[in-house]
Amino acid sequence: QKLGESVQQLLLAKIAVYLMTFLIVTVAWAAHVRLFQVIELIDDVLALLNLACMMIITFLPYTFSLMASFPDVPFGIFLFSICAVVIGLIQAVIVAYGFYHPHLLNQQIQVSENQNFYKHHILKIILRGPVLCFLAAIFSFFFIPLSYVLLGLVIVFPHLTRFITWCKTKIVGQRDEEEHGSLETFTFYLSEPLSKERVEAFSDGVYAIVATLLILDICEDNVPDPREVEEKFHGSLLEALSEYGPNYLAYFGSFVTIGLLWFVHHSLFLYVTKATRLMGLLNILSLAFIGGLPLAYQLTSEFAEKSHNEIEAIQVSCVITFFASIFQFAIWTTALLHERETLHPFARYGGKEHAFMFAKLALYPCVSLGAFFLTCLLSEFSTEIFHLMQIVIPFAFLALRIFVRISLTVIKSVMSLSRRKVVLLEEEEACLSPSET
Amino acid sequence: QKLGESVQQLLLAKIAVYLMTFLIVTVAWAAHVRLFQVIELIDDVLALLNLACMMIITFLPYTFSLMASFPDVPFGIFLFSICAVVIGLIQAVIVAYGFYHPHLLNQQIQVSENQNFYKHHILKIILRGPVLCFLAAIFSFFFIPLSYVLLGLVIVFPHLTRFITWCKTKIVGQRDEEEHGSLETFTFYLSEPLSKERVEAFSDGVYAIVATLLILDICEDNVPDPREVEEKFHGSLLEALSEYGPNYLAYFGSFVTIGLLWFVHHSLFLYVTKATRLMGLLNILSLAFIGGLPLAYQLTSEFAEKSHNEIEAIQVSCVITFFASIFQFAIWTTALLHERETLHPFARYGGKEHAFMFAKLALYPCVSLGAFFLTCLLSEFSTEIFHLMQIVIPFAFLALRIFVRISLTVIKSVMSLSRRKVVLLEEEEACLSPSET
Repeated sequence: QKLGESVQQLLLAKIAVYLMTFLIVTVAWAAHVRLFQVIELIDDVLALLNLACMMIITFLPYTFSLMASFPDVPFGIFLFSICAVVIGLIQAVIVAYGFYHPHLLNQQIQVSENQNFYKHHILKIILRGPVLCFLAAIFSFFFIPLSYVLLGLVIVFPHLTRFITWCKTKIVGQRDEEEHGSLETFTFYLSEPLSKERVEAFSDGVYAIVATLLILDICEDNVPDPREVEEKFHGSLLEALSEYGPNYLAYFGSFVTIGLLWFVHHSLFLYVTKATRLMGLLNILSLAFIGGLPLAYQLTSEFAEKSHNEIEAIQVSCVITFFASIFQFAIWTTALLHERETLHPFARYGGKEHAFMFAKLALYPCVSLGAFFLTCLLSEFSTEIFHLMQIVIPFAFLALRIFVRISLTVIKSVMSLSRRKVVLLEEEEACLSPSET
Repeated sequence: QKLGESVQQLLLAKIAVYLMTFLIVTVAWAAHVRLFQVIELIDDVLALLNLACMMIITFLPYTFSLMASFPDVPFGIFLFSICAVVIGLIQAVIVAYGFYHPHLLNQQIQVSENQNFYKHHILKIILRGPVLCFLAAIFSFFFIPLSYVLLGLVIVFPHLTRFITWCKTKIVGQRDEEEHGSLETFTFYLSEPLSKERVEAFSDGVYAIVATLLILDICEDNVPDPREVEEKFHGSLLEALSEYGPNYLAYFGSFVTIGLLWFVHHSLFLYVTKATRLMGLLNILSLAFIGGLPLAYQLTSEFAEKSHNEIEAIQVSCVITFFASIFQFAIWTTALLHERETLHPFARYGGKEHAFMFAKLALYPCVSLGAFFLTCLLSEFSTEIFHLMQIVIPFAFLALRIFVRISLTVIKSVMSLSRRKVVLLEEEEACLSPSET
């Protein structure tokens, strides 16, 4: 039992480290987006510098593996922080190079008079994270928890500063905003939320890579060894492959989940006209859980061995799917709060498309939650419930439009019936008491 | 020795199967591009159908693994062919759905009168490959070589039909072309080369995925086991990691190679205005070798174990790099043949950019060929030569522009010197023989 607990603790630590590194990578990505909003033309030197930056970024998963395997050893966190610092430095060099060759810059900054101020501001935005990471790298040798806190600070820092200025304006009044008024063109580029196109491209990339990772797993583990086929199955490949049946089912199930979550995401962003900072954060949290889906696949593909922790595997999958989809739903609710700015008029509250979008976004949270509780109640049929859920969902999406249309007409007819009743009642009242009017 | 030969044969068979499946996937991709040139708007049903298509496509690598591990067993080739058939059928359903809802179609086809003809033509293009694959699936149980021939036919078929019509017009005359004249708008969409943007997007995707695959290898194999670190290295993670030194070097070397080949590809396509069919084919062949670079990484990362086949590993890497880069060079030479149609005026023959492009494209073929022969001659220093090559190349790219400028001025001054000599000689001649004129 003690072993089980320590395994659980290790798993929790891994998940925490995963979420933290994922979020820090997205901070680096956001800095990258800002950078190429300022620099619009790219020459050879910038292309090569950017490649160097990408090289360090692709190395980050390895440092993550080290951190996750050795949470108590300073070297993993040191290496990760140093990589983040190097990424920041390369980005700073790109900025310096860009401002040294002004024809590469954005038109508005090119013609502006306080170019130097812009340069310092963008450098501040880009180097904020790396400075914290540098401190984390130093403290990793003395006191590891502080390093983790500093790295956590990298993630919340942009949101924190925004929250503080928001509080300030609430307390002190609008004075702060007036001060910024003189730099309107500047704030348009740097303090504004990220461009919707880049958020979409990033999300599509994450979905595509996660979908690709699934097949790597299956290629590695589920191609039988020629010698084994000869000895164990008398040369019959088909028989050897039939052992992997549950793996194929798990593969297609996981792919369908990723594909459909992408589909919902895509439908949602079709109606979003501007992504606010909060929506960006929610989107990234959703993507972090999408990144956990290959784990769900690995867990559910091991049914072949009839392990007795089937239910745990299914429940973990349901939880991952639930969080990935509920954060998508949260993007939608956040968008609705400022629907005039953030949503296409077509999809605003009250329309038919609104109801349809609502149904689309609610489907996965409801189904995964339902499957979770059903497996708790009917633990004997957990595998059957899970597979049934995965098979039914695509058809549910196909039939969703029809279903929404039917329920809308039902609601409307009920509403009109009740309204007619009200009208009738009013008429009756009017008939009964004509003398009063 | 006999074992070595059979291993080599197996390896050759694997490479042949890899190239064949890669090329067939690109045929499916080309059909997909054509499809979405005809269908311009996508509704939910089409998005879901497309996802189903993608699901089967991501499953193809697994069937490839089966084919490569069991080249003599019909089941692998059967499964691959069946997947290709299913992909074709889904694409056909997408076309049928699109023509049933004409508002989703391309404007030009929407307003045209012979929509039905278009439909049949696009279906013919899409189903050509799957029909051949279907035959291959059937014959796989009777006579496997014929299946391979049929699958090979899938790749060359479009080029073959084009070649035949080209021969026909050469022999019979222009009659054939006149016949097609009435369908000009149609041929504009379907017989024309692929759109440059889609070719670029596909290539970028392949480069990005190959660069990502590298890190998966390193994450899997080079994170030490906590218990081993405790026992073998007395808990010193740094010491355990120092064992993997050569792996990191190989990782960065391979990443640099992929990154720079992408850089060359990108520079090239910046100047390409239209991609002809032959250029598309050369691009795909180049990408097929790019796909082999993770193998090169795996081979060169095993230097740690001081295996005696270091030289083979390096030579295989050089050969892969050489072919990947020489096909890029071939794209450029093919583009130059019709430079008025295919190239930006800026980069046409004779300009400074032309010389620069030439140098960029020639760098990798020259260096990889040089490294190959150097390792043959100085087999003792093969590892040093290889690593030196990988370190020097990025700097060579940075200095390339300066180098080209210097050599151009040298050439110009030599030319002008020789011209001046010619002028002087002519003047002398004119002075010597004034009476003759």
